[in-house]
Amino acid sequence: MGKAHSRALLALSSLDVPLRPKLVSISGRTAEPLERARAQWGWDEAVTDWCDQVADERVGLFDNTGPNAIHAEASIAAARNGKHVLCEKPLATTAAEAHNMWTEAERAGVVHMTGFNYRFVPAVRLARELLEAGELGEIVHFRARYLQSWGWEADKALWRFDPAQAGTGVIGDLGAHIVDLARYLVGELTSVSASMRTIVPERRVEDHFVATVEFENGVLGTLEASRVARGHANQNTFELNGSKGSLSFDAERLNELQVSDAKHFRRVLTTEPEHPFMRFWWPAGHIVGWGDTFTNELAHLVGAIAGEDAVAPHGATFEDGYRCAEVCDAIVRSAAERSQTTIEYRPLSSP
Amino acid sequence: MGKAHSRALLALSSLDVPLRPKLVSISGRTAEPLERARAQWGWDEAVTDWCDQVADERVGLFDNTGPNAIHAEASIAAARNGKHVLCEKPLATTAAEAHNMWTEAERAGVVHMTGFNYRFVPAVRLARELLEAGELGEIVHFRARYLQSWGWEADKALWRFDPAQAGTGVIGDLGAHIVDLARYLVGELTSVSASMRTIVPERRVEDHFVATVEFENGVLGTLEASRVARGHANQNTFELNGSKGSLSFDAERLNELQVSDAKHFRRVLTTEPEHPFMRFWWPAGHIVGWGDTFTNELAHLVGAIAGEDAVAPHGATFEDGYRCAEVCDAIVRSAAERSQTTIEYRPLSSP
Amino acid sequence: MGKAHSRALLALSSLDVPLRPKLVSISGRTAEPLERARAQWGWDEAVTDWCDQVADERVGLFDNTGPNAIHAEASIAAARNGKHVLCEKPLATTAAEAHNMWTEAERAGVVHMTGFNYRFVPAVRLARELLEAGELGEIVHFRARYLQSWGWEADKALWRFDPAQAGTGVIGDLGAHIVDLARYLVGELTSVSASMRTIVPERRVEDHFVATVEFENGVLGTLEASRVARGHANQNTFELNGSKGSLSFDAERLNELQVSDAKHFRRVLTTEPEHPFMRFWWPAGHIVGWGDTFTNELAHLVGAIAGEDAVAPHGATFEDGYRCAEVCDAIVRSAAERSQTTIEYRPLSSP
Amino acid sequence: MGKAHSRALLALSSLDVPLRPKLVSISGRTAEPLERARAQWGWDEAVTDWCDQVADERVGLFDNTGPNAIHAEASIAAARNGKHVLCEKPLATTAAEAHNMWTEAERAGVVHMTGFNYRFVPAVRLARELLEAGELGEIVHFRARYLQSWGWEADKALWRFDPAQAGTGVIGDLGAHIVDLARYLVGELTSVSASMRTIVPERRVEDHFVATVEFENGVLGTLEASRVARGHANQNTFELNGSKGSLSFDAERLNELQVSDAKHFRRVLTTEPEHPFMRFWWPAGHIVGWGDTFTNELAHLVGAIAGEDAVAPHGATFEDGYRCAEVCDAIVRSAAERSQTTIEYRPLSSP
Repeated sequence: MGKAHSRALLALSSLDVPLRPKLVSISGRTAEPLERARAQWGWDEAVTDWCDQVADERVGLFDNTGPNAIHAEASIAAARNGKHVLCEKPLATTAAEAHNMWTEAERAGVVHMTGFNYRFVPAVRLARELLEAGELGEIVHFRARYLQSWGWEADKALWRFDPAQAGTGVIGDLGAHIVDLARYLVGELTSVSASMRTIVPERRVEDHFVATVEFENGVLGTLEASRVARGHANQNTFELNGSKGSLSFDAERLNELQVSDAKHFRRVLTTEPEHPFMRFWWPAGHIVGWGDTFTNELAHLVGAIAGEDAVAPHGATFEDGYRCAEVCDAIVRSAAERSQTTIEYRPLSSP
Repeated sequence: MGKAHSRALLALSSLDVPLRPKLVSISGRTAEPLERARAQWGWDEAVTDWCDQVADERVGLFDNTGPNAIHAEASIAAARNGKHVLCEKPLATTAAEAHNMWTEAERAGVVHMTGFNYRFVPAVRLARELLEAGELGEIVHFRARYLQSWGWEADKALWRFDPAQAGTGVIGDLGAHIVDLARYLVGELTSVSASMRTIVPERRVEDHFVATVEFENGVLGTLEASRVARGHANQNTFELNGSKGSLSFDAERLNELQVSDAKHFRRVLTTEPEHPFMRFWWPAGHIVGWGDTFTNELAHLVGAIAGEDAVAPHGATFEDGYRCAEVCDAIVRSAAERSQTTIEYRPLSSP
Repeated sequence: MGKAHSRALLALSSLDVPLRPKLVSISGRTAEPLERARAQWGWDEAVTDWCDQVADERVGLFDNTGPNAIHAEASIAAARNGKHVLCEKPLATTAAEAHNMWTEAERAGVVHMTGFNYRFVPAVRLARELLEAGELGEIVHFRARYLQSWGWEADKALWRFDPAQAGTGVIGDLGAHIVDLARYLVGELTSVSASMRTIVPERRVEDHFVATVEFENGVLGTLEASRVARGHANQNTFELNGSKGSLSFDAERLNELQVSDAKHFRRVLTTEPEHPFMRFWWPAGHIVGWGDTFTNELAHLVGAIAGEDAVAPHGATFEDGYRCAEVCDAIVRSAAERSQTTIEYRPLSSP
Repeated sequence: MGKAHSRALLALSSLDVPLRPKLVSISGRTAEPLERARAQWGWDEAVTDWCDQVADERVGLFDNTGPNAIHAEASIAAARNGKHVLCEKPLATTAAEAHNMWTEAERAGVVHMTGFNYRFVPAVRLARELLEAGELGEIVHFRARYLQSWGWEADKALWRFDPAQAGTGVIGDLGAHIVDLARYLVGELTSVSASMRTIVPERRVEDHFVATVEFENGVLGTLEASRVARGHANQNTFELNGSKGSLSFDAERLNELQVSDAKHFRRVLTTEPEHPFMRFWWPAGHIVGWGDTFTNELAHLVGAIAGEDAVAPHGATFEDGYRCAEVCDAIVRSAAERSQTTIEYRPLSSP
């Protein structure tokens, strides 16, 4: 994530954006790899304590790409010091923590954003635009799954497998992405019924979950995520069916949106000049990469910081990060209770 | 279904099978269309009361393709009269009724089969063979969905929308197929958590359901079926993930099985001489159609009648039809109770 | 081919066609396998000399599925005796021979047809209909290739590898199909520039050819066929580009036609009630097989024999077989001369 | 191209490469858009005469992305002044001009490279590695086509449609790419037979060509390129068949290589750590974009300038640019002569 963000920040230097970031300071836990990262990615300085950055007057934007367990503390400290904050997903290890981050960021009046970069895939934004334009009619079904396979062979010492650092396993890691897409494309979720499994022996977090969900607008859906689905490197896929047509997407074919009318799916290569974000990129048919979605995301963020645009609705705020966390918590709860679980959202705490 | 079965029965006349059916008698409710069907499909005679067939000494096999509500009565009557019975799916409108059919057929000692024709798709049989051979290792995930779109424009007078004739809507119609495939490929289901919706106004049966399921062997899965999924004519699709590899199938590409090793899916066109059922068909690369799966099914059935083979495990018996019905009932129950529902199966009633 | 034709003739017994064939007599060279074929496919009698059939008053249609070298003699004899004739492709081993067949069939006044069954694939007929309706605008490009891989391991004793029996290798076998499709979809070919190779050691006919072609209407195209293209069982594929849109087809996905507008290809599953030949087949989304194209072809032929319809333009007459043979001859000539070769067609000989 | 190169040069600042470029000077014909480009892409200065750059001591690498007609003069001037030179494809408007560039660059002893960026697509490099490792056995067929559709609506004032600035139309633009891939993957071409068409009224260069080719190793192939193929934004696709297996690629799915064994194609997502160039990029399954191929290309070039690696065989030198130009010239000649044309290559002129 440090690499993806660093390179996207650098790429902003050649884009038509209202603010071009300077790479002031990078932090990390261990001096040596940190210095290598600093040198390679072009940061001016490196510090082993993020508190230095939070206190640093030169820092205008705090970009939090650390393990989930430090999202809340560092992001809140940064916000309190008046820094704008971008925090990677999942926003926190619990909904309560995420709610706190949202409250503090709002109280501080800074720009805040949760790093749901798939909202910045041109095909995903196009999906949202088609939905808003009524091209699919009224939505009736939604299904999403996020399948990877690296979990089978992964080093068990990874922080992602440590509940203390990661919170949950695949739910917060991959599940959070599809929950956010469900919210972005269909609307608020009101209940969930889930089951989950830890498949690889000795693993301390879940590798797999399945769920049915209900949305506020009555739509039913399914969600599934796995780190142990052989044959899939990064299949983040969703499909929506509406009364007039359908949409489907797969992140392994990032530049394609399948769009149907009543009968037939057509493959839309989302690289035409009129497609979202394409003013930054290439001629028709020349695709963008996964890394480029971070460039789109950061371009959106600096636009918000410059006051040209709002983070919401196309970027995820800390509120979105919090609401996603409520769903993730409900998935865990439902699996434990073996029941359909209602999801409740708390409003912003009054000051 | 009458057309599909009639033509498959005719096709057996040019296959290397131990028995070749004669088309003795076709029944139907209305004389005129019945006579047209008789003449076109080559049946010797037509009767408007199936009781005549059940009593007819010339009839050896009773092939029940009528509406769901008459499956039990006619099939039981035929079995009691010593006819072998093939009954279309869903076997009955309730699990209780299906259990009765199973009991009676066993008591009569006739060959009985439920018309789950997707088991006779070469790619599906190949999937089963690969699983039995351990090619995928231990199964960890299963997901299936069956999506059609004709429900939006369908004539509401159809028997399939009448609870009295059909029992359920999409659950018994499309859901039964994927429940059967789940059982055939993964094993017995032990619990389900489902939601369902009637989407088209004035419709009296459900158009859509979603479910998570648990299998006896611990596997989690998802099931979904819809008649109102725009862009899909007949997407009966499943995917299995195992510790060594994965499989996926879509009935719209009936002759293909996608098979992965740890990393990559390969497209297997299931038309090679060594593939299941291909001794009946064409040179490599020359595909079979949906109608041909009934020919495969009926060839299997006449093999069982001739004593060359057993219906199980590759054909579905009435027991399979009954067990599928228990799952369908549990889907309805779970949706009503908003809870994960345990599925229980009754053994064969002692005589 | 005997199997495919026999089963399609049988299938006509359950179709709404003006004439239903009776399977009177099958011929073959060797008594024993011939008798097995007769018994399995349901022919009344078997003869080892086709002359008996040609003289047989009971025979109304002579269906010639023998090796290429006997196409001309037997078909002409049958026509002279007043039999309608269906002859498998390639119509003959040379254009001269094919021209003779055409002349004789016309002189005899019988219905004649060349077995280009791909014209009877619903997706191919739909392609033609879309072209006629002007959906693609003016055609500008055409490309077709037909790739198989069985040639690597094939028994070299096969008649298809014997120039005396087959004429050419892949040109007459697979090339003839794509030449016919080019003619059916785009128009007459006027010149060709080709190269060919015999790749498998000791093979006596070519395994592979490539060609560029020009059509009478100015369109340029490419043709290619191979029996040694690993990974392809039966990839008979073409693509057309027009001023308004494009079409593409692949026989391994026989029920799909990809159709584009100016920008996007949509996948049309050619199984809707309004699609060609679907009155004979199944509900939407339930595909037909390769064998079913012969049923469509024979239904067309019996319609022509019954006087309900003409063979042309949707069926290939002997004239079409002859014109295709001129192109095949020109491919061979061009490869020998290493030059672009003009193709000339002879009119019907005056009586 | 200025945008693609500028951003790739910038991206090198965050990569592990032996030299990191500084963006010293950008040139262009018109002051105002040039200044906008300079400011946006981060160049230090802008000049309206490339002669200033050629004479500039600070310039170590001359990156020529201008219209084809100025490739030769500017590149030669730069080389003579000791600058390393990267020149976009086609290297020149004629083979004679390209040969001259090669001669001069060699004489000057500078590092020279032709901008065939598709060699730097991970899937293309992987194809080459699989071929070198003998995974496909002996190559028997090759086919490539490059189809775009923007030509229908394009502004006819574009330099690409002006023979004086572009030389040829689609041949030098898209054809050059597939000729280079043919050479990179299969070997030297020895003859070609081509036809071409100008389809859009009033256009002064060809929009479409088709060709058959022969390679030194006996392989036959086909080449085709068009700017007026509806439905295709950037379909740069090739397929190779060998005695053991096959490969296919399509630039619209840039991160996928289809690889077959004797029977089945598997989809390789070329994003695993072991895949070419992936040390620069993302975790498995997270794809690269078209722009990233220029980063890979420039990383290769700076490696060569730093003496760590040679441009050849994985990068295209001016010799490769020249040899490609001979094929392009032969395509034009063959189309005019309507004959198979032998391609002859001139060695480097002796000093």
